[in-house]
Amino acid sequence: MFESAELGHQLDKQSYQQFEAELRQSLLSIQYDLKQRADFQVVILLGGVPTAGKSEVANLLLKWLDPRLIATHAFAEPSDEESARPPFWRYWRILPPKGKMAILFGGWYSGPMWDQMQDAAEPIAYERELAKILRLEKMLSDEGVLVLKFWLHLSKDQLKKQIKKLSADSRTAWRVEESDRWFLKNYDQMIDRYRDLLLRTNLADAPWRVIESSDNNYRNISVGRHIEEAIRHHLERGSVRQNRIDAAPLMPSIDGVRLLDTLPLDYVLSKDDYKVQLEELQGRLNGLVRQPQFKQLSVVCVFEGMDAAGKGGAIRRITAALDARQYRTIPIAAPTEEERAQPYLWRFWRHLPPHGQLTLFDRSWYGRVLVERVEGFASHADWMRAYGEINDFEAQIAAANVLVVKFWLAISNEEQLNRFHEREAIEYKRFKITEEDWRNREKWDDYVTAASDLIERTSTPNSPWLRVGANNKYYARIEVLRHLCERIEAALSQQEQPALDVR
Amino acid sequence: MFESAELGHQLDKQSYQQFEAELRQSLLSIQYDLKQRADFQVVILLGGVPTAGKSEVANLLLKWLDPRLIATHAFAEPSDEESARPPFWRYWRILPPKGKMAILFGGWYSGPMWDQMQDAAEPIAYERELAKILRLEKMLSDEGVLVLKFWLHLSKDQLKKQIKKLSADSRTAWRVEESDRWFLKNYDQMIDRYRDLLLRTNLADAPWRVIESSDNNYRNISVGRHIEEAIRHHLERGSVRQNRIDAAPLMPSIDGVRLLDTLPLDYVLSKDDYKVQLEELQGRLNGLVRQPQFKQLSVVCVFEGMDAAGKGGAIRRITAALDARQYRTIPIAAPTEEERAQPYLWRFWRHLPPHGQLTLFDRSWYGRVLVERVEGFASHADWMRAYGEINDFEAQIAAANVLVVKFWLAISNEEQLNRFHEREAIEYKRFKITEEDWRNREKWDDYVTAASDLIERTSTPNSPWLRVGANNKYYARIEVLRHLCERIEAALSQQEQPALDVR
Repeated sequence: MFESAELGHQLDKQSYQQFEAELRQSLLSIQYDLKQRADFQVVILLGGVPTAGKSEVANLLLKWLDPRLIATHAFAEPSDEESARPPFWRYWRILPPKGKMAILFGGWYSGPMWDQMQDAAEPIAYERELAKILRLEKMLSDEGVLVLKFWLHLSKDQLKKQIKKLSADSRTAWRVEESDRWFLKNYDQMIDRYRDLLLRTNLADAPWRVIESSDNNYRNISVGRHIEEAIRHHLERGSVRQNRIDAAPLMPSIDGVRLLDTLPLDYVLSKDDYKVQLEELQGRLNGLVRQPQFKQLSVVCVFEGMDAAGKGGAIRRITAALDARQYRTIPIAAPTEEERAQPYLWRFWRHLPPHGQLTLFDRSWYGRVLVERVEGFASHADWMRAYGEINDFEAQIAAANVLVVKFWLAISNEEQLNRFHEREAIEYKRFKITEEDWRNREKWDDYVTAASDLIERTSTPNSPWLRVGANNKYYARIEVLRHLCERIEAALSQQEQPALDVR
Repeated sequence: MFESAELGHQLDKQSYQQFEAELRQSLLSIQYDLKQRADFQVVILLGGVPTAGKSEVANLLLKWLDPRLIATHAFAEPSDEESARPPFWRYWRILPPKGKMAILFGGWYSGPMWDQMQDAAEPIAYERELAKILRLEKMLSDEGVLVLKFWLHLSKDQLKKQIKKLSADSRTAWRVEESDRWFLKNYDQMIDRYRDLLLRTNLADAPWRVIESSDNNYRNISVGRHIEEAIRHHLERGSVRQNRIDAAPLMPSIDGVRLLDTLPLDYVLSKDDYKVQLEELQGRLNGLVRQPQFKQLSVVCVFEGMDAAGKGGAIRRITAALDARQYRTIPIAAPTEEERAQPYLWRFWRHLPPHGQLTLFDRSWYGRVLVERVEGFASHADWMRAYGEINDFEAQIAAANVLVVKFWLAISNEEQLNRFHEREAIEYKRFKITEEDWRNREKWDDYVTAASDLIERTSTPNSPWLRVGANNKYYARIEVLRHLCERIEAALSQQEQPALDVR
């Protein structure tokens, strides 16, 4: 959820000024269009790590926009009037009318976020609060309210630096509160809890937009551009079909830096070293799957990556260590007629291994948010809801003692070209390269964007992605095997302990 | 949820045979259309009270339909293959493809229903299981699967009779299991739990259809007709827009008997007796709202009923007992411009009383599923989702120590006519009667149907409806006052106890 908001996004002063000038003009113009048309309202929810700049962003938006058409609301301890009524009354009373906007600090997430900080939430109260929030947001989007949820993010290091910087200057020291230091001290635990909250409320129609906030320029323009894009999307669609709001398309980061752009791809590993390590890891894997406790466990491996990234090769290095009766490799291509007659996930559910077995997916259910998104085979609404459905699918698998191990094998554009040429040159590899592969290459950039989004939106504590820089095949195969062994070892060592608390 | 399935619905043999002949023909024909078009599949879920006839219904459907295009599945203890995989795998594996149908005994409700019988469900596991089911059904309807959920119902008395009847005949005695007798013994508790399950999974796109099952003829034809109607609705709409399934319209009961048709309307109460009782009850109410504990409580009264049913008169008899500073009366008419610029429930949230106060709604949020449904002011999708939104709204209120007291004042068609004429005849009452009232009278029958549906779908343990036969104004006013006093007394006596466990 937070991966692409820890990349060090930045925007220099000159670009900022240019962006800002355009943004102010277009924000004002869509604000008047919104007022004119008055067929939906906009609720902007601001959450995030302490000191990440919620107030600064709100103040800036008020400066950029016509303040008569936007209001801000914070939710501290309930007032007397509020305490005497049901908890959500405070949100209903400040809902903007159609044609207007409101900025809500935390909004209906204030309660659960506060409880998480206080360790005050009974697990069952937390479940019920989440269910209430989900029903509220569904009702709002059914009623045509555009809900934009922002999470202003800082990594642990960035938060540490931020607190240090603010404290050092007497003009800003007052901004750092005791609770901010407390948050830093408990950062890992708190972020785990907030990640759970965000993942579970990351609705197709009201998705979270996580914004890296260590650089103020980048943060401010990002939030502004997201708001502009989302409102424009609805205005242009003449939209709000049957009252209903559909989410605007995901927007790429304004500095053009995506999650996968920052992954190192080149590693050195000689063929000789590779052979030694390969043999050792294959032996280790073979030993693991023959342990008696492995009978209570199963493994699902997902291999995704650009064409020629080495998925097949990595899979064969795994299966070489296994008994053929213990695993199946499932190559995923276009769905069959039988599969098209079923809900999308059906073709993957049917291949789930029983305990004691492994299934290796060469491409997978991520097709919907990758090739189907890029090629337009799935509608925007369909692939937007797929993130949540996939997370739910994997959570159900993981809860049933299935280890979900997901690999993204990343190669550079040039490396792919080399491999394509190599395949064409070698007789027995020629079948591997088709017209379609060349066509896909032209959309390289769209695939990187889609892949970055999916990794960010489906990396869950139970089913994280491993991104592998794979320009060196040897290195990639070793990384894959090592990670697989480590995950199985960790799972086997937990076998004795009580089951994980998974939804 | 079960109100209209305890009315003693019946179908005589001759009508049955006529219905059956038509039904078989049309079921077969839509089955082939479904096969031909093959753009959605149908999943029929059968749940219900023991001995209510789930198997009989399934067998009959198999007899009526082409068995090559429909399959049945029961879910007992998981098989070895199933236990070795995530729990929902068993449902995915038997999902019918587009163009086909399947009957599922219990389906994904088998688990939670079984757990409820065994007292085995941890509250938090129950919450999570429900959330999983809701996500599954949303995904299915987003993917274009038509899910039809039936609950075959028997009242406690009907179940008792059924068990007695089956046991008495040696040819059917084997049908009665020990667990059925156990269920009868624990009927009230079990029905409360199942009601909760049904209410919370009564989705707009996949609503429960509760069928009274004491008369086999009525039960069989009802289920068959519902299936026919729902599939036809989707076939005719050329439907499955953007893959999405919307629920078919609610179908009236096949014997034409609706919940409100069976309510006795005529009572005798003389004016003298009325005066005595009125004074006594007003005094009692006044005493109650002046108790110190009432400061922790608030009351929301909802008055619904046909025009001239006596809503205003009943309200005035309540307010006469109250201090003007303690209550507000909110007459609900067409929404103002300000209200139309907000989500539907906003206009009601804003009028919620603080603790220590009462708000009396003369008409209410039920307008959406009543006048807006009947007059077509709201789309089918909008009013279908309103039942769930209203239940959620009232649950939130009730959880915040607000007593929700809902009255349906029922008069006969003739009584309304008399009162209209009376109003026209009396100078100072003439303002009360408009052209619109006369127009509404023509749709009397549609209003009775809509009212019966809403009472059934929004009678929750925390916010039940009181149906009052109101042809005699005096009787109705006394009933209303007495019920209000009793509800407040019950709430005050619970004040000391821990809060109710409301979602």
